[in-house]
Amino acid sequence: MCRWLAYSGSPIRMEELLVKRDRSLIDQSLHARQGATTTNGDGFGVGWYEEGEPPRVYRSTHPAWNDRNLRELASGISSPLFFAHIRASTGTAIQETNTHPFRYGRWLWMHNGLIREFPQAKRELVLAIDDTLFPSIEGTTDSETMFFLALTFGLESDPVAAVEQTVGFVEQIGHKHGVEHPIQMTVATTDGQTVWAFRYSSEGDSRSLYFSTRMDALKAAYPESQELATLSDETRVVVSEPLGDLPGAWNEVPESHVGIVQPGADELRPFTPRT
Amino acid sequence: MCRWLAYSGSPIRMEELLVKRDRSLIDQSLHARQGATTTNGDGFGVGWYEEGEPPRVYRSTHPAWNDRNLRELASGISSPLFFAHIRASTGTAIQETNTHPFRYGRWLWMHNGLIREFPQAKRELVLAIDDTLFPSIEGTTDSETMFFLALTFGLESDPVAAVEQTVGFVEQIGHKHGVEHPIQMTVATTDGQTVWAFRYSSEGDSRSLYFSTRMDALKAAYPESQELATLSDETRVVVSEPLGDLPGAWNEVPESHVGIVQPGADELRPFTPRT
Amino acid sequence: MCRWLAYSGSPIRMEELLVKRDRSLIDQSLHARQGATTTNGDGFGVGWYEEGEPPRVYRSTHPAWNDRNLRELASGISSPLFFAHIRASTGTAIQETNTHPFRYGRWLWMHNGLIREFPQAKRELVLAIDDTLFPSIEGTTDSETMFFLALTFGLESDPVAAVEQTVGFVEQIGHKHGVEHPIQMTVATTDGQTVWAFRYSSEGDSRSLYFSTRMDALKAAYPESQELATLSDETRVVVSEPLGDLPGAWNEVPESHVGIVQPGADELRPFTPRT
Amino acid sequence: MCRWLAYSGSPIRMEELLVKRDRSLIDQSLHARQGATTTNGDGFGVGWYEEGEPPRVYRSTHPAWNDRNLRELASGISSPLFFAHIRASTGTAIQETNTHPFRYGRWLWMHNGLIREFPQAKRELVLAIDDTLFPSIEGTTDSETMFFLALTFGLESDPVAAVEQTVGFVEQIGHKHGVEHPIQMTVATTDGQTVWAFRYSSEGDSRSLYFSTRMDALKAAYPESQELATLSDETRVVVSEPLGDLPGAWNEVPESHVGIVQPGADELRPFTPRT
Repeated sequence: MCRWLAYSGSPIRMEELLVKRDRSLIDQSLHARQGATTTNGDGFGVGWYEEGEPPRVYRSTHPAWNDRNLRELASGISSPLFFAHIRASTGTAIQETNTHPFRYGRWLWMHNGLIREFPQAKRELVLAIDDTLFPSIEGTTDSETMFFLALTFGLESDPVAAVEQTVGFVEQIGHKHGVEHPIQMTVATTDGQTVWAFRYSSEGDSRSLYFSTRMDALKAAYPESQELATLSDETRVVVSEPLGDLPGAWNEVPESHVGIVQPGADELRPFTPRT
Repeated sequence: MCRWLAYSGSPIRMEELLVKRDRSLIDQSLHARQGATTTNGDGFGVGWYEEGEPPRVYRSTHPAWNDRNLRELASGISSPLFFAHIRASTGTAIQETNTHPFRYGRWLWMHNGLIREFPQAKRELVLAIDDTLFPSIEGTTDSETMFFLALTFGLESDPVAAVEQTVGFVEQIGHKHGVEHPIQMTVATTDGQTVWAFRYSSEGDSRSLYFSTRMDALKAAYPESQELATLSDETRVVVSEPLGDLPGAWNEVPESHVGIVQPGADELRPFTPRT
Repeated sequence: MCRWLAYSGSPIRMEELLVKRDRSLIDQSLHARQGATTTNGDGFGVGWYEEGEPPRVYRSTHPAWNDRNLRELASGISSPLFFAHIRASTGTAIQETNTHPFRYGRWLWMHNGLIREFPQAKRELVLAIDDTLFPSIEGTTDSETMFFLALTFGLESDPVAAVEQTVGFVEQIGHKHGVEHPIQMTVATTDGQTVWAFRYSSEGDSRSLYFSTRMDALKAAYPESQELATLSDETRVVVSEPLGDLPGAWNEVPESHVGIVQPGADELRPFTPRT
Repeated sequence: MCRWLAYSGSPIRMEELLVKRDRSLIDQSLHARQGATTTNGDGFGVGWYEEGEPPRVYRSTHPAWNDRNLRELASGISSPLFFAHIRASTGTAIQETNTHPFRYGRWLWMHNGLIREFPQAKRELVLAIDDTLFPSIEGTTDSETMFFLALTFGLESDPVAAVEQTVGFVEQIGHKHGVEHPIQMTVATTDGQTVWAFRYSSEGDSRSLYFSTRMDALKAAYPESQELATLSDETRVVVSEPLGDLPGAWNEVPESHVGIVQPGADELRPFTPRT
């Protein structure tokens, strides 16, 4: 099981969330508290956007906690929208091409969870990927396969529908292979403007997913915080496990829902796999 | 373009051929003389057999010349049959799962060359791989895809026919995509007893491939050599580029042929792709 | 904090102790139970002897649990005496040259613990290393510095006295720099015949260290065990944390003692730093 | 032997010089034309400055040509002053801490060349490093040792004098050990404002070093070049081997000289080791 974080809002140095805090993502790579595994040492990746540029990614197979380059980059790069992911492999190889976030054009994708019995289902899942997308697959994971299925099903035009169709398809193939609960996931994806964060599992018992509370509410609650004062009211963090212990700072995303962080009011919608 | 070496005969320490000689495989990783690229620094692998055991493999993404572990292992492990490969990527990612030799059960496979326009052809090639073999694919290279096609076409029962069918199929798919010369290859494969070494390219201009001359002939020619004296008459080395400068020590495998190193007399047969 | 294991006795495949068991060393790399840190993911190393050969080492900066090469080697190599170490860095860089076991000639050395305030003391410690040994230092750790100090103080002729002098010297330099408890250690060293295992800390509260009970006693206690039956009565395992849950299988080494595994009767002696 | 590049001037994306050109530094990592070795595959590093920030470094032990992260960073980071270095080890271990550029405070340092018989001289050289600097040494190379000697001898206040004293000291120790020509070097160092580039060898036959011609001259010579038009007249590149084939674009630094790139007129001064 993995850990991930998505940030959207006022540009900040990535180290603020990845390195500095007591329960930063790097801290979580050693000591996750709510995860299925306590160590996430099978590589990590960050993907970030800068003004008018396609996203860039830095990925490594080393544990996040001992990667010096990550600390250099996280202190040097400011971004208004970035993804970070620390990996605990569920079986596929430890290599950069299996490390999240995955990228296609302007899109990033990262996943915590798994497709159960993926080796048995993989061939049929991969066959459903669009011919023109197929050559862009670089790794061998269930997570990247889901990303390319979602792209096949229209991620770029209607993300929620595309992921609903992806999950429905994965469940259909899994059931065909006799898997009772084919999928467990929290997924984040973005086009550089909007972030979609999904929480779902076939068994209805999904891994944790949190949104930061609205900044204006947080600022009102903590008028003395200089740190909060500098962040725009639109700023949001979505995480698999809360960072830090600020009371009231985190809202849990309910089972089978998708949260949408976007300019204007954010949204929380039910998520229903379909075929 | 890559470099490889297959050894079969009296058990020797792998370092004898990988490290020690003036034109050892490690030396070739820095300075190949007959190859399309002069540096083969995109990883390497060795696969070896010991009495009654399945083959073991050691693979690394670092250049062979600066990998200390390789030197330790090559000095510590003696084997009667081993493969070694140094890689110069033709585009796919540098990761252990893309590093030769590939293994399936008792079989090893390594390749120098490429499938041209592989990204376009890959989907159709991969779809032809047997359902039960599909989950064993670990990497993303053209070379591993060829291995699993060959297994699909019966490598384990009739290796020459299976590789002929594999190459015929790759050419058929390539031609369908408008590729004039779809494949360039020297390939070695083994079940731990016999070594098959193929030299073929669609354009009839294949990369180099050499067999060592029969040891009994070499011994007769160099009666004073203590080094040769200890090797059995059956000992053979197959290489993409000759090691050392012993006159008369190497025979070139002709275009479109397969050499078979086996107990008893070795064989050299024409190789004809078929569909 | 690290974990280590030393094996001496009937030749066995290294995987028996490193990979296979429920609480193997690889399992401990993810979930140490008695250690100061629960994850030991900052690299690992193995060093082994074969008949009449100098020791060989395989070291990697990746976590032991996801290193495929380690599993291949551990299943392929049998040895009557081997060391294995999984690292949790106390500050020095994650690189192969900082990974245990360290080697000099026929000797291996590994350490769990630290020299406190090592950066301040390092210069004086390094200066005490013999001129002729100095060029053989490859890394930057406190542990390797201790090894070369011990070699300087006569490790090869009187190991216990040399380590006592090393620790006394480290404490003297530490106290000079105002460090109350300069050293914490369990150390194993060997010349390929005898294994010395030290447990000591300046504060008298040392990390755990266990010897396996005498095999003849274990065999008498478990006459039905086929696994134990094949091991010679001389076989011993020394570990920082017990492997498996066989009752009566492990004896704790007392504070400030050194255990000596050797042909004939093993020894347990008090350990007293001296200057 | 290594290759390096120092850039100072109008902020540009690092990929312009590291990746894009026909004879970019990455291209040189595979095919250096004027170097003692043709392959520089033993790791690489980049160090860069941004407005008001200490320098950051990204270093890897993989060959530059196959490191995807380097391409991502080089396309994402713009800087007015950066160093890049590709390494061909002269014997010390391949690890990030041995990879250039080295950093101390606001200073960067990189080196092409070697201290001959460094293992014999190392102890005396290291002993001369200031006590307070000693704990900051992270690696084991001759190049980093020279950096810390230069810092000891006053690099931060008078760089040319400090390097002259460093080289004089290295030669003195070398001669004492019977080494005829103790040092071979091109070295670049910077405080983030000024770049000093040294060319020297004890034998008076130093490796190549080039400065780009003044931009105003280049612009006058090539008025049609849009690429040149956007760069400030102060922009300079210093390289171990010229990039690209623009006639008149490169001036060779003479033997035993130091070039100084600084605000206002650049300087070229004789360089004389002293003790």
